[in-house]
Amino acid sequence: MRMMTGEQYVESMRERKLQVYLFGEKVDNPVDHPVLRPSLNSVKATYDLAQDPQYESLMTATSSLTGKKINRFLHIHQNTTDLINKVKMQRLLGQQTAACFQRCVGMDAFNAVFSTTYEIDGKYGTSYHKNFVEYAKYCQEHDFTVDGAMTDPKGDRGLAPHDQEDPDMYLHVVETRPDGIVVRGAKAHQTGAVNSQEMIVMPTISMGPEDKAYAVSFAVPTDAEGILMIIGRQSCDTRKLEESELDVGNSEYGGVEALVVFNDVFVPNERIFLNGEVEFAGMLVERFAGYHRQSYGGCKVGVGDVLIGAAALAADYNGCAKASHIKDKLIEMTHLNETLYCCGIACSAEGSPTASGNYIIDLLLANVCKQNVTRFPYEIARLAEDIAGGIMVTAPSEADFRDPVVGPYVEKYLRGVQGVSTENRIRVLRLIENLCLGTAAVGYRTESLHGAGSPQAQRIMIARQGNLPRKKELAKKIAKISE
Amino acid sequence: MRMMTGEQYVESMRERKLQVYLFGEKVDNPVDHPVLRPSLNSVKATYDLAQDPQYESLMTATSSLTGKKINRFLHIHQNTTDLINKVKMQRLLGQQTAACFQRCVGMDAFNAVFSTTYEIDGKYGTSYHKNFVEYAKYCQEHDFTVDGAMTDPKGDRGLAPHDQEDPDMYLHVVETRPDGIVVRGAKAHQTGAVNSQEMIVMPTISMGPEDKAYAVSFAVPTDAEGILMIIGRQSCDTRKLEESELDVGNSEYGGVEALVVFNDVFVPNERIFLNGEVEFAGMLVERFAGYHRQSYGGCKVGVGDVLIGAAALAADYNGCAKASHIKDKLIEMTHLNETLYCCGIACSAEGSPTASGNYIIDLLLANVCKQNVTRFPYEIARLAEDIAGGIMVTAPSEADFRDPVVGPYVEKYLRGVQGVSTENRIRVLRLIENLCLGTAAVGYRTESLHGAGSPQAQRIMIARQGNLPRKKELAKKIAKISE
Amino acid sequence: MRMMTGEQYVESMRERKLQVYLFGEKVDNPVDHPVLRPSLNSVKATYDLAQDPQYESLMTATSSLTGKKINRFLHIHQNTTDLINKVKMQRLLGQQTAACFQRCVGMDAFNAVFSTTYEIDGKYGTSYHKNFVEYAKYCQEHDFTVDGAMTDPKGDRGLAPHDQEDPDMYLHVVETRPDGIVVRGAKAHQTGAVNSQEMIVMPTISMGPEDKAYAVSFAVPTDAEGILMIIGRQSCDTRKLEESELDVGNSEYGGVEALVVFNDVFVPNERIFLNGEVEFAGMLVERFAGYHRQSYGGCKVGVGDVLIGAAALAADYNGCAKASHIKDKLIEMTHLNETLYCCGIACSAEGSPTASGNYIIDLLLANVCKQNVTRFPYEIARLAEDIAGGIMVTAPSEADFRDPVVGPYVEKYLRGVQGVSTENRIRVLRLIENLCLGTAAVGYRTESLHGAGSPQAQRIMIARQGNLPRKKELAKKIAKISE
Amino acid sequence: MRMMTGEQYVESMRERKLQVYLFGEKVDNPVDHPVLRPSLNSVKATYDLAQDPQYESLMTATSSLTGKKINRFLHIHQNTTDLINKVKMQRLLGQQTAACFQRCVGMDAFNAVFSTTYEIDGKYGTSYHKNFVEYAKYCQEHDFTVDGAMTDPKGDRGLAPHDQEDPDMYLHVVETRPDGIVVRGAKAHQTGAVNSQEMIVMPTISMGPEDKAYAVSFAVPTDAEGILMIIGRQSCDTRKLEESELDVGNSEYGGVEALVVFNDVFVPNERIFLNGEVEFAGMLVERFAGYHRQSYGGCKVGVGDVLIGAAALAADYNGCAKASHIKDKLIEMTHLNETLYCCGIACSAEGSPTASGNYIIDLLLANVCKQNVTRFPYEIARLAEDIAGGIMVTAPSEADFRDPVVGPYVEKYLRGVQGVSTENRIRVLRLIENLCLGTAAVGYRTESLHGAGSPQAQRIMIARQGNLPRKKELAKKIAKISE
Repeated sequence: MRMMTGEQYVESMRERKLQVYLFGEKVDNPVDHPVLRPSLNSVKATYDLAQDPQYESLMTATSSLTGKKINRFLHIHQNTTDLINKVKMQRLLGQQTAACFQRCVGMDAFNAVFSTTYEIDGKYGTSYHKNFVEYAKYCQEHDFTVDGAMTDPKGDRGLAPHDQEDPDMYLHVVETRPDGIVVRGAKAHQTGAVNSQEMIVMPTISMGPEDKAYAVSFAVPTDAEGILMIIGRQSCDTRKLEESELDVGNSEYGGVEALVVFNDVFVPNERIFLNGEVEFAGMLVERFAGYHRQSYGGCKVGVGDVLIGAAALAADYNGCAKASHIKDKLIEMTHLNETLYCCGIACSAEGSPTASGNYIIDLLLANVCKQNVTRFPYEIARLAEDIAGGIMVTAPSEADFRDPVVGPYVEKYLRGVQGVSTENRIRVLRLIENLCLGTAAVGYRTESLHGAGSPQAQRIMIARQGNLPRKKELAKKIAKISE
Repeated sequence: MRMMTGEQYVESMRERKLQVYLFGEKVDNPVDHPVLRPSLNSVKATYDLAQDPQYESLMTATSSLTGKKINRFLHIHQNTTDLINKVKMQRLLGQQTAACFQRCVGMDAFNAVFSTTYEIDGKYGTSYHKNFVEYAKYCQEHDFTVDGAMTDPKGDRGLAPHDQEDPDMYLHVVETRPDGIVVRGAKAHQTGAVNSQEMIVMPTISMGPEDKAYAVSFAVPTDAEGILMIIGRQSCDTRKLEESELDVGNSEYGGVEALVVFNDVFVPNERIFLNGEVEFAGMLVERFAGYHRQSYGGCKVGVGDVLIGAAALAADYNGCAKASHIKDKLIEMTHLNETLYCCGIACSAEGSPTASGNYIIDLLLANVCKQNVTRFPYEIARLAEDIAGGIMVTAPSEADFRDPVVGPYVEKYLRGVQGVSTENRIRVLRLIENLCLGTAAVGYRTESLHGAGSPQAQRIMIARQGNLPRKKELAKKIAKISE
Repeated sequence: MRMMTGEQYVESMRERKLQVYLFGEKVDNPVDHPVLRPSLNSVKATYDLAQDPQYESLMTATSSLTGKKINRFLHIHQNTTDLINKVKMQRLLGQQTAACFQRCVGMDAFNAVFSTTYEIDGKYGTSYHKNFVEYAKYCQEHDFTVDGAMTDPKGDRGLAPHDQEDPDMYLHVVETRPDGIVVRGAKAHQTGAVNSQEMIVMPTISMGPEDKAYAVSFAVPTDAEGILMIIGRQSCDTRKLEESELDVGNSEYGGVEALVVFNDVFVPNERIFLNGEVEFAGMLVERFAGYHRQSYGGCKVGVGDVLIGAAALAADYNGCAKASHIKDKLIEMTHLNETLYCCGIACSAEGSPTASGNYIIDLLLANVCKQNVTRFPYEIARLAEDIAGGIMVTAPSEADFRDPVVGPYVEKYLRGVQGVSTENRIRVLRLIENLCLGTAAVGYRTESLHGAGSPQAQRIMIARQGNLPRKKELAKKIAKISE
Repeated sequence: MRMMTGEQYVESMRERKLQVYLFGEKVDNPVDHPVLRPSLNSVKATYDLAQDPQYESLMTATSSLTGKKINRFLHIHQNTTDLINKVKMQRLLGQQTAACFQRCVGMDAFNAVFSTTYEIDGKYGTSYHKNFVEYAKYCQEHDFTVDGAMTDPKGDRGLAPHDQEDPDMYLHVVETRPDGIVVRGAKAHQTGAVNSQEMIVMPTISMGPEDKAYAVSFAVPTDAEGILMIIGRQSCDTRKLEESELDVGNSEYGGVEALVVFNDVFVPNERIFLNGEVEFAGMLVERFAGYHRQSYGGCKVGVGDVLIGAAALAADYNGCAKASHIKDKLIEMTHLNETLYCCGIACSAEGSPTASGNYIIDLLLANVCKQNVTRFPYEIARLAEDIAGGIMVTAPSEADFRDPVVGPYVEKYLRGVQGVSTENRIRVLRLIENLCLGTAAVGYRTESLHGAGSPQAQRIMIARQGNLPRKKELAKKIAKISE
């Protein structure tokens, strides 16, 4: 089978029978639901762009498993160039969608599971790696979008999985059968679940011997029996129901998150990648998180490009593009955005092969990358709001703009420089609002903070990887200290 | 007449016949419209608290004009204690409403117009000060809420009022009659307009001789003929239409902004405070802006208190309140918030009398105050989102929570520590969402940036007031430089 | 006795027989030693300015103990105006000396000991307060400079005083006699010790029952038998020995720190202010630290004024004063500096009376003040270095400048704009160097960080004073949470 | 000739007859002068490490001109791996010396002149590239250290070279002879000049037609007739004359800067690389600056490693290494330092070939790199001072420490945790002082600010390279704006 076109992908999603709930109702047709569709469109863009010759080198790769041309989102990274191209592809998609395009989690799960299963098998003689390779080929063959599901609800953050009062606060095996296992629990914040055909589940933290049932990784189709998705509310989500292209800011693309419930879901043996080998839970988490922290050095930079562009446009339309403080703020936004990109590129360029042969990013630098992503988009957004002006949050609705009575006043008084229509000025202001406060702010701000691990998770990794003892030795040598 | 109770205020607003438009429709009854009512409630709180004996010293004052007890929002400041109490009253109201309570603009207009008219009359022999004093007595007598309207649409920011292609981009006099003037234009971002009985209009920038028609200040009732208000969209505005107390985060209080159009509005002579004396436009703007920049050192600090409390509560509910990084983030939030308060207090304590006898804040420190307000709430919000966790932006709707099918899953998987209901956890997360991304974010973030003048406006004032020549002299003396 | 002139102060110091060591040698005449003299001059300025009629209201006060006019540095604060005037006096002296003028510690010790002894006596029937009042009168009568000595060496920071391997790591009572006590230990970082006639010693941390011997406070003359001072090295200290007015940057004023050793020093009973009442050690520390954290909102702001002026002058001399980025950096420096001032003023304006009747600052805001002082001077210094240009750290010495062979080249190539002598340009660059890297950087940077307690000490106090429970209640009320 | 050992390098420097002035005197033997020697040692380390097999891949390269093994500092970069290895070599040397090792300017000049001369020749048929290749071979053959001299004194920053009152404020050609040219002027802030055998001179800004005489680039030996070097003062420079290993902090390594005067120096034709082709001055500056801004992402990171290690050691010695705030500050320092490294690596990995075939870094990212270097080392230094404690700036001198009278007190009272000698504690504190305030602070702080161009220079380049028009197009597409 060839790589799918965007349209084929949409049709493929129509065939899945997902159990999706939104605003207290079951959604019969998630593909065409106005709240969900922009999110699907973002994934669709990963198919469309892969068909575009000008993006071929970024969007596609040659499968290391089959030798065939595949979408890069399904690729097992073979070298640092692959790692760098991953980041560039993500920036490209961020630029094209100004949203979360959701396929990164699957790509990052692919590469983390690939190398971790190899090492588990090496120790235990299991066949997880073979399972995974077959599964990866299957996904590549069908050009599937794969959700990578890691974050458990976690209940009381102060307690280990097996210590929680409710044992389901972390997903776990509740039954072992000859042909497979049955799992129960939930995965939160799943950005791509509703737009994926497949889903790889991974544990969310390092585990001890008592957490054996929780150390489980596997793949299932997203419409497997017992899976149920509840869509989370986003800031401004219902504007998408209002049928106003203007008011949503970004009418084409978006992203949504789901709470995915696993209500005693069966997993056949050949789709299991970890099952009780507790000491590998941490490795899997660390590697997935590492890849995913790299990802943020690409996708959020692309979204940042759009926001910088929007702010620059707003300055043009406001008639203040030549003010030195405006120019300086645009420089600062660019500087911060490119610093994030530097981190994404650097952890890729400094990648290295795992025992299984695929390439992994530099863990220290990937964590540094994500840590910066928890800060700079907030400042970029603040500067964008500064340049846009207060009208970004006080402009009347499109309904007012189109209204025969008050519309002419909106048209008249919201005009900026001559030669630019009021509508275009509102359009760019709504885009900035969308990215700073609206649906896209969930992705550009809060997800930048918590996605791939909250800030403190990165700090713990930076502490571990920072090699303080070595640095102390350097200092002792210079200071001529012998102990 | 005595000070009104909250209920009396609400009734009084019902009697006004405001022309209000929202979502493309005329609102028949603004007082009870679910999108507008929380905003009215915030103003109502300024009446309710003034009736509460425990807040009497902050919420009320003795009128310098009549000797009667009045709401402090209608007071002409008599000393630095008044200035400090103003800030404390604002912090109190921010704490009680977690929103913009809108009456500050009127109070700040009162004090700026009071002193400026005195100086105009001194130069020109006009009777603006007498006009204003009578007007102030009238407002105090009726315990009115007064909107202070300054910001014009401004069109091309690079052009002066008289140079704009559309002469109405700044409000101006279009006709002079024996008994008054007729004005045309608009005022943007009016937070309290829809909840006020009266409105004071002021120019928005310093002006030159050619801007004579634009140098105009006056008062009119908010339902004067020709006035029309178009309510701006806010992030998440329509959630208030969903009848979910849970999902709105702050179901009681809010704030809205309106574009107020002056469609050839007549102003009688006795309500005119400035009319063509162009060189006083700058003084009026500078003083109003100074008072209003002080205000932000009170109100936003109060809102910050609520946000800090909400974040601390979320940490409790998540089970991570004892983590050192959480404690440190709460300290940082407190530190930043109290720094803002320091600025609000300091510019008040360093206040001084004007020629008219009322007290004005220290202009340099008030601008420093507001400049910090353009930065710290953003960082406080970022830290709140950090502590809250990603679930703040991915939690399902109340409709899901109440749904018999998926509700139990939400109940189960969104639970934090034992002993706290899932509903309470969602409540605090929604409050944080409201303040960081929702309707209240418009006030806590973007209004903190642009209200009372955008960041660069403060920097220009800091440059003017910073007295660099004096600092250079100090440096020369130390360095023994003689030129 | 009348208040001393600066010259009388200098003579008075000559009469003290201090045991001072510097660079491995005993200093016979500390008053005239070139490394120490600038530090004495800074204290002398506190006498000189008190004689100047234009500064009378700031520099002097009416003693609450005797009714006589005294130097404000010896004053017991009677109201918030006194607290505010203290900060203004400190800013003035920072502006005049661009250095640490050292007398604040005594003033802050005066006010902390005054109120704490009152409360000890109330509980234990001791006569510490009477002791102190008599002592205060004695110092006021003689217009003495009093060192306030708090910081012990502390040894292992992880251990309490009584747990240290060396019992002397915190100063303690080693013998009790009928007429007094004998103490041993040391006080580190004493800025004013070498220029003071008297010294008040206080404990440095809260203490438990086992630390009884360490809970001691008293006063002694600085030349009491057994006291020995070892001057600390400062960056660039020996430049002052080179007799180049140019190269030192600030040839007139400075500050030095001493390690003060108490080698079994006798303290008569009437000079004891605390002796074993362990639970009051914490109160004394907290109050002294509170007053002293306020102080930094005055003195460092004054030094900042000089640095801002110097940077502005350097920009003039470099010919780039009109560049928008230079102007913006000067605004930022001013903004940060005035924010510190706001904190100093605010914690003063919000002061309140203690049980003893003197006024204490608002503890929360004073800690917020100091916390900002641990950050902003570093950024101000960075911006000053930015504006100054690299030549600040690469300019040749005065010896080169005066040398007949290479001097003309220095003269020629270090010239900036026409009309300004190369010497003046070097002068201002050296002043900036002095404040950013040289002797004054010790005071402006590192002392801003650690003086009156290191950053973490303030954060602990902010946590304690921030009243999180109250903030949580506010959030619960808004979110309608009942538990 | 083979690559030199460190000792051979030192001997080679002895043979040069440099005209060096320091403190108003001519230095007969710069190699052994105690103020200058640590600076020479830093360069010597670049020779020593190149002899060490474990560093061979970083420290050496195969010459693209001769095929021989050479020191990487003399290499023409052939690919992105070379660019990355350059950064790694710089970090290594920063770690080993905790100082500026001075050879980067030559390497960066080599690569900038190589490609620029190629393009000049292509346009004008000149033979500059051939000149340079021959010169490069000569330097590689002799393993020379080459100073790259760019920064002119610049006089009035507001005037172009030809508009300066003194025509020598920018170096220029004063005479053209058949066999060469004679130049006059000066180059400021030359870090490696006094330790180099050769020097490449380049213009310092873009130039217009009237600046023809100033558009000149060439090479001369550092002891060419007419060259004279005046060493700049550094903070704490004379401590190196005190013969105290302890007090200097870093007794082995350092860096100094010189004002290099060109007093009518003759340059033979074959050493000229640019002479009047004004439009290439900008290209040469931009490329050199680009390479050199990359360099800071290596060298300062290495120095940062030492400072982080020193701070961690100080925490150990103080007994507070386990405090959560200390651990967090070390994480923050590491995070900031590695962010700089990311920028250094990223601009290298994204390098591309020039027309001449050598590789140049990504200009945008290199400028972003340097811009971060103007900020983060200051914050890292601040945090180091925080962790070190105030004793860093108040500890007595070694002379006191060794003194029989006061030494025992210093020994006793400056002790930290048991098991660590007081001397070792002082050693690490002095190292931190050295890097934050002393001689090394000149390199780690101020040079980080101004070296390779001041902050604003990078911002201008970021504006130029940031491609705002492209970003506006992205925003328009998302917002569906057509103009």
